[in-house]
Amino acid sequence: MGNLLRTIHIPKLDEKTGAHVQQYVNSLTKPLGSLGRLEDLAIELAKMTGDPFPDVSPPGVIVFAADHGITDEGVSAYPQEVTGQMVRNFLNGGAAINVFSKSINASLYIVDIGVASDIDEEGLIKKKVRYGTANFYKENAMSPDEAVKAIEVGYEQAQKMINEGAKCLILGEMGIGNTTTSSAIAAAVSEQDIQKLVGTGTGIEKDKIQYKQQIIKSALEKRNPRADDPIDILSKIGGLEIAGMAGAMLAAASNRIPILVDGFISATAALIAKMISSQVADYMIMGHRSLEPGHDVLIQLLGKKPLLDLEMRLGEGSGAAVSFPILQSAVLMVKEMATFETAQVSNKE
Amino acid sequence: MGNLLRTIHIPKLDEKTGAHVQQYVNSLTKPLGSLGRLEDLAIELAKMTGDPFPDVSPPGVIVFAADHGITDEGVSAYPQEVTGQMVRNFLNGGAAINVFSKSINASLYIVDIGVASDIDEEGLIKKKVRYGTANFYKENAMSPDEAVKAIEVGYEQAQKMINEGAKCLILGEMGIGNTTTSSAIAAAVSEQDIQKLVGTGTGIEKDKIQYKQQIIKSALEKRNPRADDPIDILSKIGGLEIAGMAGAMLAAASNRIPILVDGFISATAALIAKMISSQVADYMIMGHRSLEPGHDVLIQLLGKKPLLDLEMRLGEGSGAAVSFPILQSAVLMVKEMATFETAQVSNKE
Repeated sequence: MGNLLRTIHIPKLDEKTGAHVQQYVNSLTKPLGSLGRLEDLAIELAKMTGDPFPDVSPPGVIVFAADHGITDEGVSAYPQEVTGQMVRNFLNGGAAINVFSKSINASLYIVDIGVASDIDEEGLIKKKVRYGTANFYKENAMSPDEAVKAIEVGYEQAQKMINEGAKCLILGEMGIGNTTTSSAIAAAVSEQDIQKLVGTGTGIEKDKIQYKQQIIKSALEKRNPRADDPIDILSKIGGLEIAGMAGAMLAAASNRIPILVDGFISATAALIAKMISSQVADYMIMGHRSLEPGHDVLIQLLGKKPLLDLEMRLGEGSGAAVSFPILQSAVLMVKEMATFETAQVSNKE
Repeated sequence: MGNLLRTIHIPKLDEKTGAHVQQYVNSLTKPLGSLGRLEDLAIELAKMTGDPFPDVSPPGVIVFAADHGITDEGVSAYPQEVTGQMVRNFLNGGAAINVFSKSINASLYIVDIGVASDIDEEGLIKKKVRYGTANFYKENAMSPDEAVKAIEVGYEQAQKMINEGAKCLILGEMGIGNTTTSSAIAAAVSEQDIQKLVGTGTGIEKDKIQYKQQIIKSALEKRNPRADDPIDILSKIGGLEIAGMAGAMLAAASNRIPILVDGFISATAALIAKMISSQVADYMIMGHRSLEPGHDVLIQLLGKKPLLDLEMRLGEGSGAAVSFPILQSAVLMVKEMATFETAQVSNKE
C-alpha cells in the first residue's frame, strides 16, 4: 500500500460527549425519546465530532467519474460515452446531484478519476488515474499501484474539501457499468449468492439480469480476488471511482467528519474503506436505502440503518443529498430546543 | 353543519397536468424512474396544484392547541397544565416545531382553539371555542355547534395563511390527552380492535395502556357516536384542535394547496376532514409514519404511504416539517434538471 494508506489514523468515537448529549436530549421539551432517530443521530454526530453541538453545514459533495471496461460485455443499458456526457452535465449544473447539492447549500467537486475520454471543461478537477478500467471479464481492471493512486486521489480531494470548510461529506459517482463492478465486489467480499447482489442498474431488461449475473460469476472465477484484500479486489475488479470514494471516506473519518453514504456504489466504496481501516465505519451514516438489491446486503455488512427509503437508484450521491436535511434537523434540535427547566414546562408526572 | 361546511368545494385533481409532468420527468437526465418516490411526488404535486412546476415554498405551519377533559381519567403521562406551558414554549421559540419550522423557512401560527386556561402572550392567535372539552368518559366532549365552530376556526386560519403566501400546509397540535381522543375517534370510524389503536402517547407505562384502552372502550359504549358522522364524532369525543386541523385541511384542498400530514393526531384530523368532503384526501401527502400504533390504521384508511419512518411520535407537526425537504427536492428536480436533449446526453440503447 501507499505511504498515505499506511499512516491513516482514525480517531475513536467520543463516547463521553455522546453520553453527555444523550442526557441533554432527555432534558429537551418533548416526551422522552419522542424524536426517535433524530435523537440517535444527534448522539452519533456528537460522538463522531467530539462536539455536543456540532455543525453539519455546509456539507460537501464530491462526485468521482470513471469508466468500466466491463461495459464491453454489454452489461449496461447505456453506452459508455454517457459517463463523459454526464460529467459535462454536472459541470453545466443540469444533473440531479447539482439540483440536490444546491438545495442543501453544498459545495460540489466533479473529479475525473478515470473517464475513458478526455474532457476539457472549466470546473472539472482532472485527476485521471487511467482511461477507464480494463474489462475484468478478460483481464485485471488495473494495477495495484493504480488502485492505491485512485484511493489517494479521493483522500486528497476530500481533505481539500474539508480544509475549505465542509462539515459533512457526501460521496457520489458516475460510471456506466459500475453496478456490475459493485455487484462483483460485493460478491467477492460477502460470499453471498450473486442473485442477491445484482439488479437492473440504470435499467437493463429483467431477462438481461441473468446474463449480467453470469458475466460477474465467470469473471470472479477468472480473477479470483482475495476476499480480505481491498487493493487486490480493486485492482482485479475496479473501479477507479469506487477507490476514490473509499479514499475520501478515509479522509473524512480521519478528520472526524461524518460521512453520509449514498446507494449501492457508495456502500461498496464504504465496504472497501472499512477493509482498509475498520474504524471508518464509525463515521458513516446511511443516507438512504437504494432499490438495487445488493444495497441491503452491504447495509447489513456495514451495520447501518438507512434514513430514507424512497425507492431511489440513481447514484451520483443523490439519495444522500436528499437525506441531508434530516441530519440538519437532528443538529438543530440539540442546538435550539428549550429544556423543561428553561421553558418552565412540567415534566412527566 | 355550518354555512361554511355546506359550501366547501374541493377541485378535482388535474390529471392532464399530471400526465404532462410524468412525460417530462421521463425526459430528465437520469435512468427512467431512478428517482423513485421523488418522481411520484412531482406528479402528485402537479395534479394538486394544476401547475407542472409548482412551488411548495414557503410552507406554512399552524399549531392548534386545546385541552381534553378525558385527562381527568388519568390517561396521560403529563398533567393538563403542560398544554398551556407548551403554548408559551411555542411562543418563545423553544419547541421542536419552532426549530423545524425555522429550518424549512415556514411561517408559524400558534392558535389557542381550546386551552383550558387563559394565555395572554404576544403572538398567540386567540380563537378559543371553549375551555377544553368535557370528559368524554362522563359526558359529550362539546356541542355540535362548538365542533362546527372549531372546524371553521381552522378553516379561517388556513385561509389566512394561504392568503399570506403559504404554498404547502402543515397542521400540528398540542393537547395533553389527545392520543386518547384520537384512538377513540379511530376506533369509532374504523371499527378496528382497540388494541391496534392505542399506544403510549407521551409515554405512559406499558401496564397503563390496558387501562387507557378500557377507558376508551367504555367511553365509546356510553357516547355511541355515529361512525359516518364527523360532527357527531367530534362533539361526543373531541377534540377542538382535531376539528381545527380538519378545517384547515379543507381550506388547503379548496385552494389546491398540498397538505403535509403529520402523525397520529394529524391523521385523525385528516380522517375527519375526509368524512366531511372525501376529495380532501387527494391533497394529502403523508409526511411520516409515527410510532403510535394507530397511525398505521389511519394511513391505510387514508390510502397513503409515508415519506419518512424515523420512529418519531412527538406531534406538533414535527414529523411533517422534517419531511418537507423531500417535497422541495421533488419540486426542484422538475424545475432544475436538464433533459437528455438539452444536455446532449445519449439515452438508453
